[in-house]
Amino acid sequence: MEVDHRIRVSGGDGETTTGQAGVVGVFFAGCWLRLRSVLVGLCCWVAGFARKVGRIAREDPRRVAHSFKVGLALTLVSVLYYVTPLFKGFGVSTLWAVLTVVVVMEYTVGGTLSKGLNRAFATFVAGFIAVGAHQVANRCGAQGEPILLAIFVFLLASAATFSRFIPEIKARYDYGVTIFILTFSLVAVSSYRVEELIQLAHQRFSTIVIGVLTCLCTTIFVFPVWAGEDLHKLTAGNLDKLAQFLQGLESECFGEKAASENLEGKAFLQVYKSVLNSKASEDSLCNFAKWEPGHGKFGFRHPWSQYQKLGALCRQCASSMEALASYVITLQKSQYPEANPELTLKVRTACGEMSSHSAKALKELSTAIRTMIVPCPANIAMSAAIKAAKDLRNELSEEAALLQVMHVAVTATLLSDLVTTIVKIAETADNLARLGHFKKPEKTQKDVAINIPSR
Amino acid sequence: MEVDHRIRVSGGDGETTTGQAGVVGVFFAGCWLRLRSVLVGLCCWVAGFARKVGRIAREDPRRVAHSFKVGLALTLVSVLYYVTPLFKGFGVSTLWAVLTVVVVMEYTVGGTLSKGLNRAFATFVAGFIAVGAHQVANRCGAQGEPILLAIFVFLLASAATFSRFIPEIKARYDYGVTIFILTFSLVAVSSYRVEELIQLAHQRFSTIVIGVLTCLCTTIFVFPVWAGEDLHKLTAGNLDKLAQFLQGLESECFGEKAASENLEGKAFLQVYKSVLNSKASEDSLCNFAKWEPGHGKFGFRHPWSQYQKLGALCRQCASSMEALASYVITLQKSQYPEANPELTLKVRTACGEMSSHSAKALKELSTAIRTMIVPCPANIAMSAAIKAAKDLRNELSEEAALLQVMHVAVTATLLSDLVTTIVKIAETADNLARLGHFKKPEKTQKDVAINIPSR
Repeated sequence: MEVDHRIRVSGGDGETTTGQAGVVGVFFAGCWLRLRSVLVGLCCWVAGFARKVGRIAREDPRRVAHSFKVGLALTLVSVLYYVTPLFKGFGVSTLWAVLTVVVVMEYTVGGTLSKGLNRAFATFVAGFIAVGAHQVANRCGAQGEPILLAIFVFLLASAATFSRFIPEIKARYDYGVTIFILTFSLVAVSSYRVEELIQLAHQRFSTIVIGVLTCLCTTIFVFPVWAGEDLHKLTAGNLDKLAQFLQGLESECFGEKAASENLEGKAFLQVYKSVLNSKASEDSLCNFAKWEPGHGKFGFRHPWSQYQKLGALCRQCASSMEALASYVITLQKSQYPEANPELTLKVRTACGEMSSHSAKALKELSTAIRTMIVPCPANIAMSAAIKAAKDLRNELSEEAALLQVMHVAVTATLLSDLVTTIVKIAETADNLARLGHFKKPEKTQKDVAINIPSR
Repeated sequence: MEVDHRIRVSGGDGETTTGQAGVVGVFFAGCWLRLRSVLVGLCCWVAGFARKVGRIAREDPRRVAHSFKVGLALTLVSVLYYVTPLFKGFGVSTLWAVLTVVVVMEYTVGGTLSKGLNRAFATFVAGFIAVGAHQVANRCGAQGEPILLAIFVFLLASAATFSRFIPEIKARYDYGVTIFILTFSLVAVSSYRVEELIQLAHQRFSTIVIGVLTCLCTTIFVFPVWAGEDLHKLTAGNLDKLAQFLQGLESECFGEKAASENLEGKAFLQVYKSVLNSKASEDSLCNFAKWEPGHGKFGFRHPWSQYQKLGALCRQCASSMEALASYVITLQKSQYPEANPELTLKVRTACGEMSSHSAKALKELSTAIRTMIVPCPANIAMSAAIKAAKDLRNELSEEAALLQVMHVAVTATLLSDLVTTIVKIAETADNLARLGHFKKPEKTQKDVAINIPSR
């Protein structure tokens, strides 16, 4: 199109109007093309975004439910404001109920409870102390009052902020301390001008309680999401993932159908990775679960901290698996002549048994946790795995010469694995130095650096 | 004391007054004893708490500075309220400045900037949209207005809440979305009764901006804590910790002074553990660092994401170290006869070289990062470590018979390590089942479980 126009423009030399119309045409055609490409880009972006949103919603439909629950709670609380008789009772303080709903409403019941109770309790305590501070400051006259109030605010805010660095308070009452500072400052500061302080404090506290109750009702009675249940499922799921890795190892490396092909892209070698990074979500779920009342299969004092212990052990397993995975890949790559086929076969069989029995044991444990049925007391699969490990050790101990070297050699292999990772660290550090514009080392310093190792 | 009184009471039978006085005496003595034990307990608790607070303050004195900074910012902003001419300009909206300071003030400059900008921007956008919604709803008459406003609030709050599940928004704009919902609901709801909506919105926005500016000034100009600097130091520190582990390994296991004693309690075997759990703090520091302007040695677009890459590699190293540590402990425990002393010595020497050179390389990298000087291009220590690993591989490849078995045996050893961890998992699951009152398995189910492995 664009080319066509240009040809016509350069061709129609004598007729200026045609030329001008042509120039205008070129201009509009250019605009249209640019606009079209922008529109197409926008459409692509919107389509991609919609797909992403759809995926997030499908992954966990409770997210959609939660979004509507927040809308519902807000609408319920704003009815307070629209209905005139109710409004007269609380006045402008009704807005605090709206504010509370927005800030307190969390995805899980435990999260909402933790924030709601923290907010209500901290508001009450801070309001009480602030009214006391106002009474004290009031006796110091018109000039002394603001100064004394400012000193109170400074001291209490500093002390409360420092308390947030204490780990126990940080873990469970962080939000409460924020609200404590907030309420104390607001009441103390406004006490300087507001006449009916007690009434204001009372109104504000009631509306906050109304907000918290609205949140709790919506979160508990409309499609509740229990942090405890999520933690329970996460733990069982992690055990399953560990079992999958061991199953994969058995069938791909030691089983009858074990292929000698490259293992690098196999899915089972990636499955433990999400377990390694589960600490943060586990900790927050456990913290929220402790606030939740009994629900479904879980009592009020369900031993949630045991799940954290299980999680720590699962991560330890996953980090052993990481070492194992990187080792298995290099092992598969380098094929050596079969020099001692008999012993090799024995060790391979023992490896296969250990992994398949351990996988079975993990599956059993995960099922036991999921169904909440006591796992078999003498976990048979586990004892089979332990027996395989012990047999292997006995088998190898007969080959004393081999065993002794082997033990050192295992360390050496693990160390050379480390060396590979450290090489990658050095490369990334080089990248950082380049992108972050690090200084060039001075000549003398470089010489020293070179001289040290050669000494 | 108590016993003494009782004896006297039972002895003095005739004199009732003495007896009564004695009973009263017993009562007061009991009270006094109980009170004293409570007081002593309280004193102990207070002393312990004070020690803890002192330790937290000494660990990082910037925490104390931060606490006073929050107090200072709050006092500064409350001056707005006390000074009458300023108060007349803003009215009750001044309280929003106090609220903003409490909620926005974070430990690091990046955190405060991220929250402050999110708050100011979200308030502006939401206020704009809410005023528009009010204009639309206003045309639907007195009856239609609250219904339409409620529908707007419901839809926008639901959509905005859902957007918080999108990872990119969650990471950087989570707080902004909360404030968006908050402001929209507050303005839309109160628009139903407040007459001068635009003026109110304007006042509130100005006070929020004043609050944010106060926070930023205090946080940037009074003892600033830069997230970027902390991230930088954390990364260098982690590299140092990895180097310490390797140094310890060299001196305790492969060096000349290597003791054959039990290694289990050694400090160097614990040092990598904090690296394993550094992901959460690293991610949040990196997120905040991206908001910070250039400061000290860091430009505005410093490559912060490179630190995350380094962190991931450090954690990979640490997890290899975990496998190595548990292996080294068992190795040291089980001493075998020296069957092939020559080869063993060679492998041990190679191990020693790999660890000492790697440790040196890591130390150099950490120094390079700390001083921001480009690390030596051909990192000499690293190439020495790589050479040691290669030499070892060549050395071992001459012993083909050994190597082939060894490779499988390494896997077997790692697997039997895994089995040990899984046994611990089974124990913890048993604990959970006991404490969580899991159901007992039914007889039939148990039989099935027993029959499967015996097949």
